[in-house]
Amino acid sequence: MLKTLRFQMKLKAKLDCATFVFDIDGVLTDGTFIYDDTGKVMKRFGPHDSEAAKLIGAFFPLHFITADARGFNITQKRVSDMGFEAILLSPRERQVFVEELMLQNKAVVFIGDSLSDIPAMQSAYLSACPSDAMKDVKKEANLSLSTAGGRGVVAEVYSIVKYCTRGVNRFAKF
Amino acid sequence: MLKTLRFQMKLKAKLDCATFVFDIDGVLTDGTFIYDDTGKVMKRFGPHDSEAAKLIGAFFPLHFITADARGFNITQKRVSDMGFEAILLSPRERQVFVEELMLQNKAVVFIGDSLSDIPAMQSAYLSACPSDAMKDVKKEANLSLSTAGGRGVVAEVYSIVKYCTRGVNRFAKF
Amino acid sequence: MLKTLRFQMKLKAKLDCATFVFDIDGVLTDGTFIYDDTGKVMKRFGPHDSEAAKLIGAFFPLHFITADARGFNITQKRVSDMGFEAILLSPRERQVFVEELMLQNKAVVFIGDSLSDIPAMQSAYLSACPSDAMKDVKKEANLSLSTAGGRGVVAEVYSIVKYCTRGVNRFAKF
Amino acid sequence: MLKTLRFQMKLKAKLDCATFVFDIDGVLTDGTFIYDDTGKVMKRFGPHDSEAAKLIGAFFPLHFITADARGFNITQKRVSDMGFEAILLSPRERQVFVEELMLQNKAVVFIGDSLSDIPAMQSAYLSACPSDAMKDVKKEANLSLSTAGGRGVVAEVYSIVKYCTRGVNRFAKF
Repeated sequence: MLKTLRFQMKLKAKLDCATFVFDIDGVLTDGTFIYDDTGKVMKRFGPHDSEAAKLIGAFFPLHFITADARGFNITQKRVSDMGFEAILLSPRERQVFVEELMLQNKAVVFIGDSLSDIPAMQSAYLSACPSDAMKDVKKEANLSLSTAGGRGVVAEVYSIVKYCTRGVNRFAKF
Repeated sequence: MLKTLRFQMKLKAKLDCATFVFDIDGVLTDGTFIYDDTGKVMKRFGPHDSEAAKLIGAFFPLHFITADARGFNITQKRVSDMGFEAILLSPRERQVFVEELMLQNKAVVFIGDSLSDIPAMQSAYLSACPSDAMKDVKKEANLSLSTAGGRGVVAEVYSIVKYCTRGVNRFAKF
Repeated sequence: MLKTLRFQMKLKAKLDCATFVFDIDGVLTDGTFIYDDTGKVMKRFGPHDSEAAKLIGAFFPLHFITADARGFNITQKRVSDMGFEAILLSPRERQVFVEELMLQNKAVVFIGDSLSDIPAMQSAYLSACPSDAMKDVKKEANLSLSTAGGRGVVAEVYSIVKYCTRGVNRFAKF
Repeated sequence: MLKTLRFQMKLKAKLDCATFVFDIDGVLTDGTFIYDDTGKVMKRFGPHDSEAAKLIGAFFPLHFITADARGFNITQKRVSDMGFEAILLSPRERQVFVEELMLQNKAVVFIGDSLSDIPAMQSAYLSACPSDAMKDVKKEANLSLSTAGGRGVVAEVYSIVKYCTRGVNRFAKF
């Protein structure tokens, strides 16, 4: 509860330069990979996120990143159907990516679920994770969401942002 | 509890012109989309709904609508296997669709799960949503069902209607 | 609790002629159907059931039935991988199937999950259903199992039978 | 709680020769098999395990075994994407496999989920199972984990090992 309030206060303070970075596997998906005998062939994406991403993206910079090179074409197809572009970044590169955004005075809100997301979370202005993220990630994140990966994480982030933009003129139509 | 009673009372009052409109993704499915590297390739439909839809459809007009143009062929295949036809309607068009039915003196019962369903819900005579619909949708709906999307939502609606038709001659065989 | 005891007592009383009939969709699967744009293409079968079916089948007649004509080839593949054969029976035929076994003095234990299984359940000596069966089915069944469809229903039935065969010489190796 | 403590103490006592053996179906997957009309075509692997396996494997011998001959190519693809090799062992052979490792003075930690894993568990130094393993397996295992199959079982084992290596010089970088 306190964590939620603190998250909202920090977000409100930097609404004008807030920038959202979403990890994809385990956040937009439930983290499972479907294999056949040729390798990784499918991923399951969840409800509500496409709608929510468009709503956030109309007012804030929004990035989708993935470290999964083998499944990149699958991921890219989904993210492009949502109207965005997926960026392939190794666990190491994602921290650099966040740091560069921070240096451009963006207030990065990073959403990730796995151990390799922790450095990027630490470099971000704010961090959040799905309800089924790994324990160490939940400890590290500023906010552990109530939605599991692939069940509408982007949509929950949208609700939080919507709450924070209330009464702010610039975001009247958010 | 009170919401359920009120829903049943309102439904009983208009049984003779009740018309059911079901959104498909997130209602007949759990809202997930299966992607491979060619795009959206599969959807998962749930148990009990086909049986229940036939039972409802034998006594009431029943429509299945979807806004998902990319996955329309998948959706249509399932709905036609169930003995119905899916109608492709943008979020905007679905409100118009409901309003036109209402103008024909139909008492539309609309079942949807996402933010873009809210206008259609507001235009309907009654609205319901799956147990895992978005929070704002649950607030808006006259009734939040106890079944999650893709786990038998149509079947739960069938049970409610069955309860409401008890003792009504015309529906003795429902 | 009482229901479990009564189920076990009735099963013990007729162990020598017990015959198991399992519905497949919603029992061996979680009831979901995976569709692509050519129709119903895949089903998800669960853990533990193959192992358990072999153990039951070594001592008791065991039948797997399905009403799903469209997905029959998928179902047959799985059941034959388990070492059995799936029988295609319409909802109506399945009651006849149970009745004929009963006339041959078999004590049919029927496991099903949907409304159309109710007549067959009523004709059987004993009936059970998965924990996520439809409400009316749970009311009708002699026993509502604690396992959901596709999560090891056959395995739970195996445990119950194993408990009932304790101390019975003929089943010492069950 | 007591079980966890005892498991940790036993693991600490033999850290130098600890060897991990993971069953695959029901442990790295949720145990479901996806069938089409040609047979078993797909499996769903979960989040966090690949990352965790690499971390464990950098310090300890780590084996992945499976009894599923029909789905072996699927399984092998996934395990090799994780940087390991799957070994095909019948239920009987897996006990022998564990016993041979034990004879080489390895302290085998065996993680399995099904009835046929019990003999191997009994031969191992320590055994654990996912939270959704069969009841008899949970009774037999030294530790029943809090993670379900396919939801990060290897990752939970990694956390336990990490806890046990704290303060041990050799594992400072674990």
